[in-house]
Amino acid sequence: MILQETLAFDTRGRGTRGITTEIADVVSASGISTGLCHIFVHHTSASLMLCENADPTVRADLERFMQRIAPDGDPLWQHDMEGPDDMPAHIRTVLTDAGLTVPVTSGRLGLGTWQGIYLWEHRTHGHRRRVTVTVQGE
Amino acid sequence: MILQETLAFDTRGRGTRGITTEIADVVSASGISTGLCHIFVHHTSASLMLCENADPTVRADLERFMQRIAPDGDPLWQHDMEGPDDMPAHIRTVLTDAGLTVPVTSGRLGLGTWQGIYLWEHRTHGHRRRVTVTVQGE
Amino acid sequence: MILQETLAFDTRGRGTRGITTEIADVVSASGISTGLCHIFVHHTSASLMLCENADPTVRADLERFMQRIAPDGDPLWQHDMEGPDDMPAHIRTVLTDAGLTVPVTSGRLGLGTWQGIYLWEHRTHGHRRRVTVTVQGE
Repeated sequence: MILQETLAFDTRGRGTRGITTEIADVVSASGISTGLCHIFVHHTSASLMLCENADPTVRADLERFMQRIAPDGDPLWQHDMEGPDDMPAHIRTVLTDAGLTVPVTSGRLGLGTWQGIYLWEHRTHGHRRRVTVTVQGE
Repeated sequence: MILQETLAFDTRGRGTRGITTEIADVVSASGISTGLCHIFVHHTSASLMLCENADPTVRADLERFMQRIAPDGDPLWQHDMEGPDDMPAHIRTVLTDAGLTVPVTSGRLGLGTWQGIYLWEHRTHGHRRRVTVTVQGE
Repeated sequence: MILQETLAFDTRGRGTRGITTEIADVVSASGISTGLCHIFVHHTSASLMLCENADPTVRADLERFMQRIAPDGDPLWQHDMEGPDDMPAHIRTVLTDAGLTVPVTSGRLGLGTWQGIYLWEHRTHGHRRRVTVTVQGE
């Protein structure tokens, strides 16, 4: 059995947005009991992340970490057509993930207690981001 | 066909532990000949890694590399509730992977000659880490 | 339904090589309409990357970024049996991906407009790199 659905999320500029609930809803709708759920973002300046879901300072620290290793406006970047955040957004996407796969167990998304799924916008300004969810199993 | 099994590994603090044999055993037990094997760690302070399997200094160098780019106790971290290794553990997990997918070919895990699957504990102290293996195919 | 095929690519030393067309051909040949395409490189010194596909300076900047955070010949590396690029190649592989999964939608690889699939050779010299493509779905 397989279910595939494409969702759209409007981001409000750089930062993370929890999407665990929206993904869990697709898994429930699939009727699949045991299998895998794949989540994919169709962009190169936004990414997906499994991250600690309790303390928002974790994600704030990740933001500062990325700013430190791949700073906006760094003279190293040749690619800056869309601004100082253009190349750092691509680097952050490559270092994290365009796709995540999570087990489906007993009809539910099999995340650990402290794991949440986040859409991470890496551009300064907000964008509409397309995310395709594919649930496969039985 | 699909087989899903959850394993538990006790880590002894920061460092890597080879789990290729345990994963290969699940693949053998599945009876699946052609497909995919997905491995998932249900935590945000431990991760999975495909790494060179012959020379242990590769993993020692990776440890030092991570310590250099995300040092324990760095003043950049706001999130340090569980100690100086708390935030670096989350960063290392995000930079590596909570999930890996490996082809299953001729009934076996289709790794390259030099590829091993490692569970990487990022906290200073040991923890029990849950890993779910899902094998799908025919 | 499932189709699995192993391809070989000869790289010309450090740098990226677009392989979207070759992967899309395997998806077409599979006859699968809805599902997932998994791509896996059987090596620990070359990796796969989803990256912006329009401006080559993005990949040149990524190359320089990697050279900055994991320089060839860095005194931190103990593992240098195959030369100054040996350990950086393993680090780059761990920071990017040995495996990628992309949705298959309406019989086609469901990439975003600006997403391309790249094989990234991290060694100074060229190598023959094996890549296994597995398409699952219906």
